[in-house]
Amino acid sequence: MSGLIAIDWGTSNLRASLLNAHARVVEARSAPGGVMKVKDGLYAPALLGLCGDWIDQGMGALIASGMIGSRQGWKEAPYLHCPAGLAEAASQLTRVQVKPGVDLSIVPGLTCIGADGEHDVMRGEETQLWGAALPPGSCCVLPGTHSKWAWIGSGGAVESFATYMTGELYGLLTQHGILGRLMRFGESHTESFEAGVRLGLDHHANATHVIFSARTAGLMGRISAEGLPDYLSGILLGVEIGSARSATRTLGGSAAAGLTKGVFLLGDDDLCARYATALRLAGLSSTRVDDGATTRGQWLVAQQAGLVRHAS
Amino acid sequence: MSGLIAIDWGTSNLRASLLNAHARVVEARSAPGGVMKVKDGLYAPALLGLCGDWIDQGMGALIASGMIGSRQGWKEAPYLHCPAGLAEAASQLTRVQVKPGVDLSIVPGLTCIGADGEHDVMRGEETQLWGAALPPGSCCVLPGTHSKWAWIGSGGAVESFATYMTGELYGLLTQHGILGRLMRFGESHTESFEAGVRLGLDHHANATHVIFSARTAGLMGRISAEGLPDYLSGILLGVEIGSARSATRTLGGSAAAGLTKGVFLLGDDDLCARYATALRLAGLSSTRVDDGATTRGQWLVAQQAGLVRHAS
Repeated sequence: MSGLIAIDWGTSNLRASLLNAHARVVEARSAPGGVMKVKDGLYAPALLGLCGDWIDQGMGALIASGMIGSRQGWKEAPYLHCPAGLAEAASQLTRVQVKPGVDLSIVPGLTCIGADGEHDVMRGEETQLWGAALPPGSCCVLPGTHSKWAWIGSGGAVESFATYMTGELYGLLTQHGILGRLMRFGESHTESFEAGVRLGLDHHANATHVIFSARTAGLMGRISAEGLPDYLSGILLGVEIGSARSATRTLGGSAAAGLTKGVFLLGDDDLCARYATALRLAGLSSTRVDDGATTRGQWLVAQQAGLVRHAS
Repeated sequence: MSGLIAIDWGTSNLRASLLNAHARVVEARSAPGGVMKVKDGLYAPALLGLCGDWIDQGMGALIASGMIGSRQGWKEAPYLHCPAGLAEAASQLTRVQVKPGVDLSIVPGLTCIGADGEHDVMRGEETQLWGAALPPGSCCVLPGTHSKWAWIGSGGAVESFATYMTGELYGLLTQHGILGRLMRFGESHTESFEAGVRLGLDHHANATHVIFSARTAGLMGRISAEGLPDYLSGILLGVEIGSARSATRTLGGSAAAGLTKGVFLLGDDDLCARYATALRLAGLSSTRVDDGATTRGQWLVAQQAGLVRHAS
C-alpha cells in the first residue's frame, strides 16, 4: 500500500482524500457524516459508505484527524501534551478496526496549559499546523467556530495555543439571542465590519459589555439592520485579536516577538480574508497559508509512523 | 383616583400592583404576557385581562415601566438622556389608550454614552433605581439577562450606566452551545462557582478565551459535570465584575471612588446572593437593596407627574 486514505473527520463533516505515493491528492470526497451526525457509534459503516471502494482496492493505509478522536467520537485518542510534533503524534496513534484486517489510525489531539493555568485543547488543527510546516517562533491563527492561536516551536512542533470561542459566540448571539432580532442577514458591509473591529480591539477588556453595542447601534440608527451582522462579527474578531495580542505581550519573550513579525492565517477563504482585515486594523500583518495543510499533515504523520513511504 | 395601578411589563412577564393612597401595595398579580408573548399588538386586552376589574372600579391611575415602551412594545417611549431623574421622567411620559377614557402612562427608558463612545440603553431598571433612592455617588448593580452597572448622581438621578450581557450569554452557551454538552444541571456547586469567579476576575481581559475553560475543565476532569454550570456562571460573573471594575478605574474620579465604598445590589434574591459572593471575591463589599423598588419608583414618577397624590 503505497498511498494514503486521509480522513478529516470533524463535528459536522466527513472528508476523505486519496493520496498517491507522491503525497498528491488524486481524489477527494465528502459527506455530511460528522461526529455529531453519526448515530449509535456506526462510524465504520459511515466511512465504508464514503470510500469503501478505495479500502477494498487497497489504495492505501488509513489515517484520520479531528473530532473523530474525541470522547464523543469513534474512540478517544488521548491528548498529547505540548510541545508536540510529528514524532510524538506518530508514536501515539489510536487504532480502530474498520473491517477485519483494516485499521484506521487516529491522530491524537493536543493539550497545553495556558498562561491562565487552565488546560486548552485542539483536535484536527494540530495536523493542519504540522502540514503547514511553519517556521519556529511564528504564530498561526486558525479562524473558525473555536478559533485557535498557535505558537510554533522548533521542528514545527506546536509549542502552545489558545482557543477563542468567536465563531460559536457569533452563531449563538445571532441565531438565538436578542442581538439577532434587529439584524437583516445576507449583505456584506465592510464599513460596519471595520467599525466593529475597531471597537472590539479598543475594548476587548470589556467584552461582555461591548457586544451589547450591536444592539444599541441598531436601536440608535447608527448601524443599519443590514450592517449589524458584520458589525457584531467585527466586534468579536476585534475582541479576539485585542485579547490575544494583549495576552501575548504579557507572556513576553519569543511569543511576543513572534507576533510583531505578523501571523500566519490557516483556514477557510472567507474567514481568513475577514481576519486579515481585522489583523491589519490591529497593526498586525498576516500571511495566508495555502490550502491542503490537513492532508499534508496527515501524510507526514503517516510517513513518520511508517504507514506510508514517499515514492523515491 | 387616589391609588395607582403600577405595571411592570417586561420581555417575559406582565406584573400589576395595586397601590393605595399611602403608596402601599394592597394586591399584586402577574401573567406570562410579556412583550414578546403578546401577539398582533393586543396589549390592551392583555392588560384588561389581568386587572380590568381594578380599572373598571377606578382604583387608580395607570403607569407602566419596562420593555412595553420599547420599539417592540405597545408604543415606543423615547429614551431620556442621562443624567435623568424623576422630574425628567415625569415630563416625558408616553400615553396609550387602554379603553375610552383610560390612559396608561409609559415611563421612558434611559440612554447614555459610555466611556467607549457607544450608546447604552435601559428600560425598567431606571424606575427601580429611582425607587431605591440610592445616595449620590453610589454604584448599583442590577443582575439579570442584561446586567446593569449604574452610577447615581445628585437627587438620585441616574448619572450613567453600562450593560453586561452576562445572563443572556449564560443561557445561550448552556442551552444552545457546546459548553452545555458536558454539563449536568440541577445541583448548586459553590466551590466550582468560586473557582470560576476567580478565573473570570483574573482574566476578564481575555473573556472569549477564558469561557472555553468551562469545556476543558470538564474534559480534563477538573470540574465535575454537576459543577460545570456554576463554574461557567462564575467565570461570566467574574468577567463582568473584573471588566466593570477595570473600566471604572479607567474613568477615575467619583465613579472609581464610589466603587471603593462598595456597590448596591438590586434584583432577584438568588442572583443577588450569587453576585454578592462574586463581588466579595473581587474585594468589593455589597449591600442588598430591598424589594419593591419598581413599584416605589413608579409611584414616585406618577406623583411627580401629578397622576397621584400621597394621602396626608
